[in-house]
Amino acid sequence: MGGHIHCDNLDPLGHLVAVRVSHPGKFNAMSRSMWRDLKAVFDVLATQPGLRCVLVSGEGGHFCAGGDISEYPDFRFDSERLAHFHENEVWGGLDAIRRCPVPVVVAIEGNCMGAGLEMASCGDIRVAGVSARFGAPIARLGFPMAPREAQLVAQAVGWATAREMLLEAALLPADEMKARGFLNRVVDDAAVMSTAMGSAQRIVALAPLAARVNKHTLRAMAAAPADLAELIEGAYDYADQAEHREGIGAFLDKRQPVF
Amino acid sequence: MGGHIHCDNLDPLGHLVAVRVSHPGKFNAMSRSMWRDLKAVFDVLATQPGLRCVLVSGEGGHFCAGGDISEYPDFRFDSERLAHFHENEVWGGLDAIRRCPVPVVVAIEGNCMGAGLEMASCGDIRVAGVSARFGAPIARLGFPMAPREAQLVAQAVGWATAREMLLEAALLPADEMKARGFLNRVVDDAAVMSTAMGSAQRIVALAPLAARVNKHTLRAMAAAPADLAELIEGAYDYADQAEHREGIGAFLDKRQPVF
Amino acid sequence: MGGHIHCDNLDPLGHLVAVRVSHPGKFNAMSRSMWRDLKAVFDVLATQPGLRCVLVSGEGGHFCAGGDISEYPDFRFDSERLAHFHENEVWGGLDAIRRCPVPVVVAIEGNCMGAGLEMASCGDIRVAGVSARFGAPIARLGFPMAPREAQLVAQAVGWATAREMLLEAALLPADEMKARGFLNRVVDDAAVMSTAMGSAQRIVALAPLAARVNKHTLRAMAAAPADLAELIEGAYDYADQAEHREGIGAFLDKRQPVF
Repeated sequence: MGGHIHCDNLDPLGHLVAVRVSHPGKFNAMSRSMWRDLKAVFDVLATQPGLRCVLVSGEGGHFCAGGDISEYPDFRFDSERLAHFHENEVWGGLDAIRRCPVPVVVAIEGNCMGAGLEMASCGDIRVAGVSARFGAPIARLGFPMAPREAQLVAQAVGWATAREMLLEAALLPADEMKARGFLNRVVDDAAVMSTAMGSAQRIVALAPLAARVNKHTLRAMAAAPADLAELIEGAYDYADQAEHREGIGAFLDKRQPVF
Repeated sequence: MGGHIHCDNLDPLGHLVAVRVSHPGKFNAMSRSMWRDLKAVFDVLATQPGLRCVLVSGEGGHFCAGGDISEYPDFRFDSERLAHFHENEVWGGLDAIRRCPVPVVVAIEGNCMGAGLEMASCGDIRVAGVSARFGAPIARLGFPMAPREAQLVAQAVGWATAREMLLEAALLPADEMKARGFLNRVVDDAAVMSTAMGSAQRIVALAPLAARVNKHTLRAMAAAPADLAELIEGAYDYADQAEHREGIGAFLDKRQPVF
Repeated sequence: MGGHIHCDNLDPLGHLVAVRVSHPGKFNAMSRSMWRDLKAVFDVLATQPGLRCVLVSGEGGHFCAGGDISEYPDFRFDSERLAHFHENEVWGGLDAIRRCPVPVVVAIEGNCMGAGLEMASCGDIRVAGVSARFGAPIARLGFPMAPREAQLVAQAVGWATAREMLLEAALLPADEMKARGFLNRVVDDAAVMSTAMGSAQRIVALAPLAARVNKHTLRAMAAAPADLAELIEGAYDYADQAEHREGIGAFLDKRQPVF
């Protein structure tokens, strides 16, 4: 029951929202109620037409150290309840982030393990501090990763890194996760939040409908790369949109576009 | 109407052809006529049985800075004409490079943006100078990337980099694009053309039918990785080819093969 | 007929087995009989319920330099016999490693070319010495890579690296293969075996059924990423397993789990 998902509007126009994972004393470990809250928060954000970017972070110097293991004896040893937990509660929260129609910037400090790695894998831009550590050492806890979660993580960290994390319980530092393509930027620990905020603000200033179309296209193609016909249907409906005219007009006028 | 795609035969046997993107004063920005010319050039190259390698580059110290935006007001704000532009003109040119039956080496100097990034993504071997810059900052222009083009770029630069380029309009330097797996080699700016030419000449000296089969196999599998049956049908027809006998014979005779 | 695949049990409980590729004087080049032996060895290992990890290496300071070319004139110039060689003998051996139900750690010293690169691509964790060299320069031998083998290698080394190796016959050093995501660790040449053994011993100490489920999940998803339904069926049958209870119980008791 412990822990919360905080959601704060960061600007008067509703363009930028901060989502913060909070479970004091547990490195923001995800409890079952937090997974449900996570889904509820992102389900609401998905309905807000003015939203342009979501910034996700953890409180108190850590992103998220995993699941809240103190709850596990209550439900994990029964396969039906276990399936419900992973397929509905965990995947409900993760998929809500993935389905977010606007760019998601993830700011990662300290521990980013298990559930934390999975939440970070759902984002679009990932910024971490040099001291951040990554892994999914659940082989120490005696259980495998659920299929959907393993696919999500493997696509984000790469298959070789997923194997190392799951089969050897390896923990990897931020510079290694940058080299392996998971992180977009690694900065001093003190600069993580300001760097991620800078990324979010750049996104807010860019064309918002284009961002929503790009998110949809990239997500659909990552899931089923061979099926383009459905995507192409309607792909050019934006032709007469104001932001399209403004972007090209501003370029030709040699001025900054205002979206 | 401005700009040209130059095509020059670099050796008397027709093994090596240089394709140069040229639009003086516009960093080789691709006009509509250049996209059509690009398709025409590669369609002819596809019919030449003696061809072994194509070297693609840009003139005047840049690869290509994107599309020719001065043409955009004429057609982009009508969805039918926009769809025709992307699905026929742009994709026609890009797919012609992709379908090239022999290895394509891309030499990248200076700006490699938007249309330039897309053309480079169609190549097999990518060599860039340390000062080259990469991106697809069309979110500044108020429009998203077309689905086929997004898939092409994301497969070449990786999904995380595609998200960074499209959602944040990020520009990345050559060493970063090497670290992210897009570039095979980064060299001094003055050495880009000679390094790419060296790569092309090594390819010309290798077994030419094997190269064509490898290109076909890799392209087919990148598009639909699970469907191998069709590829295996006929995959071993090369058994009795002269180059197969020459390669193995030369190895056993401890001499250089001549293909 | 030359060469052998050695298989040694490294501990009294049968948890760890070492498989060594051996062809003295030929840098462990794979002969046809070695491919058949490789399949036989891994087919037996697949039936051993106590097995937790397999460590694969080459003898005499090299992993494997490729196929045994001295045998090639006997069968390669007939397409039916060539297809049998690749589809049955080579793929039989490689697929037996891929189907191994427990983690496979690969220790790579010296040459890792062609058949060696393919065998290494079948492993889960790859450790190499700084002097190791990688490639598949069969374009020098006048033939392309077989489709299944090209898919296997391209998925492990990445498409750009596969193109460079196959189309340009490029040879790449260990640090480059680390940067490109193929190798998990690069160490001093003298430390390759001890580092790989350390990885294997860590795996042996982790939850063994979880490792088998993770291997199955990752392999199935790499082959057909969009088809999750079959994987989810039965994915939670482990709920009441002893190792699941032990892992979570040990964590909550603040003690080391014993699997």
